[in-house]
Amino acid sequence: MTHPLLDLAPLTAARFAAVERRVAALLETGNDVVITQGEALLPLEGCIRSGARPGSTALNVVTGPYGQTFGGWLRDCGAEVVDLEVPYDTAVTAAQVAEALAARPEIDFVSLVHAEAATGNTNPVAEIGEAVRAHGALFMLDAVASVAAEPLRTDAWGVDLCVIGAQKAMGGPAGVSAVSVSERAWERFAANPGAPRRSYLSLLDWKQRWIDAGRRALPHAPAQLEMLALEACLDRIEADGLKTVTARHASAAAATRAGAAALGGGLAPYVREARDAAPVATTLRTPAGVDASALVARALAADPGLPLAAGGGALAAEMIRVNHYGPDAAPGTVLSSLTALGAALAETGAPVDLLAARRAATEAWTG
Amino acid sequence: MTHPLLDLAPLTAARFAAVERRVAALLETGNDVVITQGEALLPLEGCIRSGARPGSTALNVVTGPYGQTFGGWLRDCGAEVVDLEVPYDTAVTAAQVAEALAARPEIDFVSLVHAEAATGNTNPVAEIGEAVRAHGALFMLDAVASVAAEPLRTDAWGVDLCVIGAQKAMGGPAGVSAVSVSERAWERFAANPGAPRRSYLSLLDWKQRWIDAGRRALPHAPAQLEMLALEACLDRIEADGLKTVTARHASAAAATRAGAAALGGGLAPYVREARDAAPVATTLRTPAGVDASALVARALAADPGLPLAAGGGALAAEMIRVNHYGPDAAPGTVLSSLTALGAALAETGAPVDLLAARRAATEAWTG
Amino acid sequence: MTHPLLDLAPLTAARFAAVERRVAALLETGNDVVITQGEALLPLEGCIRSGARPGSTALNVVTGPYGQTFGGWLRDCGAEVVDLEVPYDTAVTAAQVAEALAARPEIDFVSLVHAEAATGNTNPVAEIGEAVRAHGALFMLDAVASVAAEPLRTDAWGVDLCVIGAQKAMGGPAGVSAVSVSERAWERFAANPGAPRRSYLSLLDWKQRWIDAGRRALPHAPAQLEMLALEACLDRIEADGLKTVTARHASAAAATRAGAAALGGGLAPYVREARDAAPVATTLRTPAGVDASALVARALAADPGLPLAAGGGALAAEMIRVNHYGPDAAPGTVLSSLTALGAALAETGAPVDLLAARRAATEAWTG
Amino acid sequence: MTHPLLDLAPLTAARFAAVERRVAALLETGNDVVITQGEALLPLEGCIRSGARPGSTALNVVTGPYGQTFGGWLRDCGAEVVDLEVPYDTAVTAAQVAEALAARPEIDFVSLVHAEAATGNTNPVAEIGEAVRAHGALFMLDAVASVAAEPLRTDAWGVDLCVIGAQKAMGGPAGVSAVSVSERAWERFAANPGAPRRSYLSLLDWKQRWIDAGRRALPHAPAQLEMLALEACLDRIEADGLKTVTARHASAAAATRAGAAALGGGLAPYVREARDAAPVATTLRTPAGVDASALVARALAADPGLPLAAGGGALAAEMIRVNHYGPDAAPGTVLSSLTALGAALAETGAPVDLLAARRAATEAWTG
Repeated sequence: MTHPLLDLAPLTAARFAAVERRVAALLETGNDVVITQGEALLPLEGCIRSGARPGSTALNVVTGPYGQTFGGWLRDCGAEVVDLEVPYDTAVTAAQVAEALAARPEIDFVSLVHAEAATGNTNPVAEIGEAVRAHGALFMLDAVASVAAEPLRTDAWGVDLCVIGAQKAMGGPAGVSAVSVSERAWERFAANPGAPRRSYLSLLDWKQRWIDAGRRALPHAPAQLEMLALEACLDRIEADGLKTVTARHASAAAATRAGAAALGGGLAPYVREARDAAPVATTLRTPAGVDASALVARALAADPGLPLAAGGGALAAEMIRVNHYGPDAAPGTVLSSLTALGAALAETGAPVDLLAARRAATEAWTG
Repeated sequence: MTHPLLDLAPLTAARFAAVERRVAALLETGNDVVITQGEALLPLEGCIRSGARPGSTALNVVTGPYGQTFGGWLRDCGAEVVDLEVPYDTAVTAAQVAEALAARPEIDFVSLVHAEAATGNTNPVAEIGEAVRAHGALFMLDAVASVAAEPLRTDAWGVDLCVIGAQKAMGGPAGVSAVSVSERAWERFAANPGAPRRSYLSLLDWKQRWIDAGRRALPHAPAQLEMLALEACLDRIEADGLKTVTARHASAAAATRAGAAALGGGLAPYVREARDAAPVATTLRTPAGVDASALVARALAADPGLPLAAGGGALAAEMIRVNHYGPDAAPGTVLSSLTALGAALAETGAPVDLLAARRAATEAWTG
Repeated sequence: MTHPLLDLAPLTAARFAAVERRVAALLETGNDVVITQGEALLPLEGCIRSGARPGSTALNVVTGPYGQTFGGWLRDCGAEVVDLEVPYDTAVTAAQVAEALAARPEIDFVSLVHAEAATGNTNPVAEIGEAVRAHGALFMLDAVASVAAEPLRTDAWGVDLCVIGAQKAMGGPAGVSAVSVSERAWERFAANPGAPRRSYLSLLDWKQRWIDAGRRALPHAPAQLEMLALEACLDRIEADGLKTVTARHASAAAATRAGAAALGGGLAPYVREARDAAPVATTLRTPAGVDASALVARALAADPGLPLAAGGGALAAEMIRVNHYGPDAAPGTVLSSLTALGAALAETGAPVDLLAARRAATEAWTG
Repeated sequence: MTHPLLDLAPLTAARFAAVERRVAALLETGNDVVITQGEALLPLEGCIRSGARPGSTALNVVTGPYGQTFGGWLRDCGAEVVDLEVPYDTAVTAAQVAEALAARPEIDFVSLVHAEAATGNTNPVAEIGEAVRAHGALFMLDAVASVAAEPLRTDAWGVDLCVIGAQKAMGGPAGVSAVSVSERAWERFAANPGAPRRSYLSLLDWKQRWIDAGRRALPHAPAQLEMLALEACLDRIEADGLKTVTARHASAAAATRAGAAALGGGLAPYVREARDAAPVATTLRTPAGVDASALVARALAADPGLPLAAGGGALAAEMIRVNHYGPDAAPGTVLSSLTALGAALAETGAPVDLLAARRAATEAWTG
């Protein structure tokens, strides 16, 4: 029985290598790119377990929940961990990072999340990268929620390990991810006796069996469908132009923020400063007495397909997340999300102005 | 270069025949089903050119633009044509059809559109079928816009030629269609020297080369992708249950009609009686002074993906069509359509109540 | 229920027009290209019914079964038809065409098949085109079996109507086809009162509603899947290079012919001269006493996926067709076809040398 | 830009859970099934790292290269490892396993590969399972190369951890895999402080966040395409019937073995006893003086698409692997593989009889 997803021919090594080069171009890097066969947590975990070890000291910048996960992995590996945590409604500043580095000269690893999908903020990586480079530490960036949504300059910013996934702003598949690895990161991994080897988590295995072997034969068959979908989403980004894609995400964020402000009813931006707001998702605080989870549930009851969610963990009662990435970074989805939230708010008795919200969002989009 | 849409294996005769049987079940017919490789206009034209001839008299029921097209084809074939035209904002009644038949006993062919996507009405085929059967004429039904949106009982209603397409309520592909053909329809075609033979329009060719030959070998390769997509949409309908699918369309129509009424601002239902409103699309009249095309353009400027259109031809200035078939027969799409129309109306200065419209639509959906 | 073939977004007019331009480039033409929503028989029938009429005289070159079909359509339209039939095991020559034209100066339409998939020959269109142009007749070419398999120079050869399908050497979908139409062909169609209008067969309808309307809005939704698959196969041809694709087909033909010669056992080329052999399919004559249909059935019993067929009609007993187009224009398929035929021949007692056949085929491929 | 592999709707929890149940049915198990988002090495590594710990003793049955990998992981985890290695050209016997267990009563974990794709043998799991159950150890089975190719009775055989992948005999995607986990295996994992937690390798994370949480909400989005493809291949297996699918693989193995024997030229079965030969792949020894890698290279030069490979590692010079799983478990592929190998052997001067090989293979298939 023929099916479009079955019985596809295996991918050639040349074609796999071509995808690596296209991802490198997307990341603006000359470093090796490793395409990892799993969700982006796989290369993130692989990087930390390869780079951290007893005796090393890591500065772990925590601006959202993933930072907490990274801290756990770093400690698992026996590293000394300095957590630089900032309130989740702001970005970390380069000055804060520089200060933390100055306080602990032995820091040799810095982990940072670029854009935080869960809390809606984004960090100034260009400036932070300068501080990290000046200090000399290895710099790992989780760019899963920023790639294709905002500028990402791996080499210009001095990022040694830049991890991406395709399923957010790239609009691609969820079962493949990638990481670019600098030469000095490879050296650090190779010198670490505890780095994963002969393991699904190992980046060194892949380097040895594919990169160092001249990229002539694939060590084992990659997930064919994921690779085809990754190619297709790279095709689409290249056809549209990366600038157009990131501009669309910036517009979606501006429109959502402006629309929520004009809506009334007490929704307030969670991220204090607009310049710290991430293009992938806009987070909003509910007014006192309005439960965020219940509000989102009401909005989704009316329109189950909307990209709305309540905050995670402690924020479940007070924060709403409006996602607007990939195909959802579109005027229609933003307007529908605002309108559904407004209608749900109105049911609580709050005074809302749906028309004003839509007008403000439309102006912010095109403006 | 592997691609999911290329290099698919050819379809076997057994698999093609199985699709025919599943379409027959969908149409509730024991007649032959011919799967035609093109849009539904192909079998509609094929039926009329096969069934009509000089010396025959056709009752052509005109409740929308396709009826006009059918009249043209009937006249092309040399048939005498009696047009029974009713205002497009109502359904035809069985009494009107019975009267027309009684006035012209020589009528031997009746053409009717079940649901009119362009004008939003639907005709009472069960009752009309009784009248046609009593008269004895061959009965052709265009069910393209009704199949999977409302009940369709080909044999119980005495339909000799029932034409469907997959791209509306079935949510399937646009390049394949089907027609069920009764024994007496085949006899009429065979006796017509002017019926298309050796032609892309010919139904008789297919009967001879496939049905009469025992369905053992396909005369030529069907469009493989269209057949796979047709199978997939039949799978989905069967998994969801046909009743669930038609109920979803009925809810979408009820919600749109109720929401528009509650919106205010002067939008009025185009189809006068709710019982005559088609489940695939709701048509609305704009208030005096508001151009429908301009209103739709404004709504689509805000959200280009909405299934909205202005009326065709003379109705372009005064009628709006809200489509809600296939994946668009969903609460979210209906609410977004109503809201976008309301916001566009508000820009003209009309007083609208978006919240009331959404509430009414939601109640009508679940009610 | 999500499925890769369902719920695709509609195609935009701009994207549809881009496909037209890419097909024009493939055909090396500056004429309008009409993409027809059906198998290639649709535009072939559309061209003849649009171009032929009572009072016109057509030279119908018959080098295979499609020529007979064309003659039938031409006569249906009331044209006077001059059939120039040559034995199916040779090509027609330009001299034969010139002579036929000279004998009937009133000829105003010439129909020709480029490559004959059924009989395995190909005609010298460049030279024939010169004769037709000198005479001034409208020139229709059926290039379904030649496009992407051998050079096709629509404008350089003076072809007014060049019809292609995607499902042979292009390796694309079966439910879409195309025809390029010269200005003078459009004029001829427009002047013909019998040309199909308001019909699935009509090319004039499409011109009026799409081309003349500035290609701004699609008159009705094309078959979305077919268009996506057509784009994908154009992508693949452009990425591989058209020359590489045609060279692959030429190699497949040379290898099959050479392999069959070396096999022994009495298989002989059906097309007498190698220069007349088509790159899409190689036809072979079975030795006396060996039934071609039975031989093919035996070969397919062993390997049901091979692209082998017995000849059609009167040739069923004596001719074998080895298809080698699209993905089957590959060394492995050619070798498997030759080997399976050889093994089936051996069962009849014929002396065959499978190794020699494979060696000769491999040499001819690379040579 | 629309693409069939992009912008698919997310999978619901209910649909994900339904796939789990269908995999459980395929494995004939009532245990929990965990669907893992990566190649099957992921759950294999996850099982061993969850189940093994300092203080435990594992019997690692080594009948091919994966057994060696398992031994490495078991030692990494601090377990005492007893390797029971048998020559790769035979299966292990239940008696050998029973003896090894009797010698070390403290053994609490047994790892075994069902079918060895690399060496072409298969082990008698039913009998071995009895011995392991009698002993009481936890029993892990790598069934990646056996599922859908031969009977697999997880519960009847007492398998605690049964790992499968979809990309071999199931003919499905390569980026998803699964493991069934018995209650006592879960208990063992939970009691192991070194078992992966908060890790891509962790099975316990998934149990906690999905199974124990009532399978109500997916902890994170699974790879959508992989899941759709897994559903499609389960559809196909269920439609064909699992017995038909395994019978097809058994026929392919029998045909390849018989064909190679009849070919002459010195190819000998690598697996000594036919009853130990795996249905996924047939391994053959080249005659003295004939390098297996060079022979395979020659065969692939003629037909690059054939599923042929030389042995890995030390076997590269002397062993050929003919794969015949999924779509390659077909008569045509088997015949083409045998013929291509025979032709390549003939080039070395060996006397081969291609016709005899094909006859013997065809008889063995149908016999």
